[in-house]
Amino acid sequence: MKKLIIFTVLFVSTTAYCDPIQSKVHSAKTPSENASESKLSLLNLPLLKSGKTNVIYLIGDGMGVAATSAYRYFHDASENKTVDKTIFDEMLIGMSSTYPDDEVANVTDSAAAATALATSIKTYNGAIGVDKQHNNVGSLLDVAKERGYLTGIAVTSQINHATPAAFVAHADSRFSYNQIADQYFDLRINGKPKVDVMLGGGQDYYIRKDRNLVQEFKDLGYQYQDDINNLNQLTKAPALGLFAPAGMKFAIDSEHPLRLAEMTQKALDLLQEKPFFLMLEASEIDWCAHANDVACTMGEMHDMAETMKIIKRFIDAHPNTIFVATADHSTGGLSISANGEFNIRGEYMWLSKVVKKIKASGPVIAQKLVANKAQWMTEWMDLTNLPLTPQETKNMQQALDAVTDAKTKEEMMRVQTIVLSTIDYYSCTGWTSKGHTGEDVQVFSYGKDRNKFMGAMDNVDIAKKLFTYLKP
Amino acid sequence: MKKLIIFTVLFVSTTAYCDPIQSKVHSAKTPSENASESKLSLLNLPLLKSGKTNVIYLIGDGMGVAATSAYRYFHDASENKTVDKTIFDEMLIGMSSTYPDDEVANVTDSAAAATALATSIKTYNGAIGVDKQHNNVGSLLDVAKERGYLTGIAVTSQINHATPAAFVAHADSRFSYNQIADQYFDLRINGKPKVDVMLGGGQDYYIRKDRNLVQEFKDLGYQYQDDINNLNQLTKAPALGLFAPAGMKFAIDSEHPLRLAEMTQKALDLLQEKPFFLMLEASEIDWCAHANDVACTMGEMHDMAETMKIIKRFIDAHPNTIFVATADHSTGGLSISANGEFNIRGEYMWLSKVVKKIKASGPVIAQKLVANKAQWMTEWMDLTNLPLTPQETKNMQQALDAVTDAKTKEEMMRVQTIVLSTIDYYSCTGWTSKGHTGEDVQVFSYGKDRNKFMGAMDNVDIAKKLFTYLKP
Repeated sequence: MKKLIIFTVLFVSTTAYCDPIQSKVHSAKTPSENASESKLSLLNLPLLKSGKTNVIYLIGDGMGVAATSAYRYFHDASENKTVDKTIFDEMLIGMSSTYPDDEVANVTDSAAAATALATSIKTYNGAIGVDKQHNNVGSLLDVAKERGYLTGIAVTSQINHATPAAFVAHADSRFSYNQIADQYFDLRINGKPKVDVMLGGGQDYYIRKDRNLVQEFKDLGYQYQDDINNLNQLTKAPALGLFAPAGMKFAIDSEHPLRLAEMTQKALDLLQEKPFFLMLEASEIDWCAHANDVACTMGEMHDMAETMKIIKRFIDAHPNTIFVATADHSTGGLSISANGEFNIRGEYMWLSKVVKKIKASGPVIAQKLVANKAQWMTEWMDLTNLPLTPQETKNMQQALDAVTDAKTKEEMMRVQTIVLSTIDYYSCTGWTSKGHTGEDVQVFSYGKDRNKFMGAMDNVDIAKKLFTYLKP
Repeated sequence: MKKLIIFTVLFVSTTAYCDPIQSKVHSAKTPSENASESKLSLLNLPLLKSGKTNVIYLIGDGMGVAATSAYRYFHDASENKTVDKTIFDEMLIGMSSTYPDDEVANVTDSAAAATALATSIKTYNGAIGVDKQHNNVGSLLDVAKERGYLTGIAVTSQINHATPAAFVAHADSRFSYNQIADQYFDLRINGKPKVDVMLGGGQDYYIRKDRNLVQEFKDLGYQYQDDINNLNQLTKAPALGLFAPAGMKFAIDSEHPLRLAEMTQKALDLLQEKPFFLMLEASEIDWCAHANDVACTMGEMHDMAETMKIIKRFIDAHPNTIFVATADHSTGGLSISANGEFNIRGEYMWLSKVVKKIKASGPVIAQKLVANKAQWMTEWMDLTNLPLTPQETKNMQQALDAVTDAKTKEEMMRVQTIVLSTIDYYSCTGWTSKGHTGEDVQVFSYGKDRNKFMGAMDNVDIAKKLFTYLKP
């Protein structure tokens, strides 16, 4: 299969901050042909005229408008009726459309959206760093590395999951996890792996029977840690931290509920000696929303918000930094209030106070109820603070009684479904889907150039604008 | 009951476009005490320093982000995979929170939101131009009229419906329709009714057994028309056009599907001789969304979009005009795609092509099926172009068979529910509610000052900013 590294046409609609350029298509061997030698000629990219700029790019996976609006209620601590503004309000600057270029789907998945956000190329759902014709396309991270920037990724999913993968790897399918993991080591720019600091989950993909990529990174001089409690043992780049077998625990279930914020601070500490490109993802907003788990979603939103506060402080101290945050798509069809005036309260309401009292994700609540069947109501009240009606109690009892020692997926899911639908009912939370939805997402920015991301745009426009900040 | 006319504190967070001022509270008699004499002293309002500016303020009732995003797909005519941008994309500038100040509800209704947008005061759900203590509060339209601007409203609901009412009247309850209609005539500024051009629905409220307000307006010199086909018979202000007993027909059911655009053009024609304040509402986006009727919603969105194009052309010719459009809240929990990959197509999809083929609103389709029971399938195919499965056919047949000669509301609603759920199923449209939801809404602007509405704000901030444009 013939593959090309393409660097994208970077026409940006306003010309204030870049010079018009011509597209340039570079021949290159495939990764398997010659991974260590691929060197990209990038001389014709448009440039900003001032000095080098750090780029921080944060993606809230699945973070639709309902998520940031709900978080405002969730975050509000005031006794008065004013709902306190959030860091999202402070940084909101525009909105983005997200549709893919797919033969069937017209609502994006995370792979196509991440490829658009990373490379400025629309592609099909499932594609990682390849265009619709399956040609490799170069990412912002590729260009940054080629031009001598330090590079980093910090995510709460496995580091080879779709969104970060589109910045580093090329694969026809997002589910080629091992192939993608290999590319993090095998693909080289100027003879070195592309990413200097990698933090997140993914041990199972990097230490496998057929290959121990962690050892290979160590042999190249990478520091390595596998426990987030030892994050501070990472003292210099290059560094690799894999803190979970696959994705990290949900914030709501974790002893490190602000683990993205922690990893972001560490990445900034390790990268700031040189100009850097840092890609971040609050990966599991999407996972919680796929499960229609509102308390879990709010836990991830809080980690994202605290991450943005850390970035704000960094930029206040290092103003030559551009920061953009956005979402790849919306997930779950979340709405604030559901069933109109026919909900539990008979009013247009969303009860964040119900959500605030939930102490674990749906699957963890289900596990704990099953593990303590005899005293499940005590466990339930401790974890949710939601008194059940006799009928609700009966339904839950039946679901728990039906769980066998095998604890099959179906048995556990039945319990989880009752748990989450009860939380939805009492908090007046609405969902339309276990999948993605096509509403526009928000664009956030902070720092001196934030107005360049003003108004409506498409996801590829965000990448096009960010490319202009990467100087040789 | 003691009532006050309050003119709001107009502190705007950035000081670039207004001078800091002190709040001023004006005593005034209630409308019933002395409607014709209330005269407002407004000397301490903050002012822009340049010349007089026309203000056009368009509210898309119930128009959440899903509505504008869905409209982009609906509007797209291209054969390629790029989804064409809309007038909403061209004008997007910010977003707004919408929550009310209500003892129970924390998601707004149209009355509280309209009062916030008209006066800059948060209040309880149901309130029309009164604050939480039931004091009257002055609106942008009041200030404009006081300062010698011509004033207009054009809406697709009855003109005394919640949103326009909050700009003109004061009532403890939005449902005091007759009292509100009376105030359109009885409340005076400088001895005259507040609104010079009124276009929309509402004959039943203005020509009643107890009072003929239309005749009273005529006696004051207002031109009057009751048929939108005679819109051009209105040749000068003051003018009143009431084109339906209550709300006008849905766009999708109307021979004038662009009736808001038509009325807007007429209002601009009648008002443009002097500086003016024009309030517009695409009222029935909300009504279609309350019914969870996606084709109906898209018809209203198209009228709103065409209205914005007319306003754009006007501003291009009259640049001393500020235009802001927003929504009062989201309605229905609409999502683009539903049920994830378990929908009819097995992909993340929203099928605008299904929606485009629907020729009538849910209630009209239901009426036509019932009226032609023997040949209902022919009628159905003509109105929807959606072939039904045997099971769907059976369900519809049963619902139609159950409709008696009385055609009760319940019987008709059962048919309508099947009609709309079938359209949702085949178009992959999701809803969570027959009521309002609390997600932030978008803010749109066009013209030289549009950047003043950039970023995140609250609905009261929009009013505060617009007050600064109304000069004596």
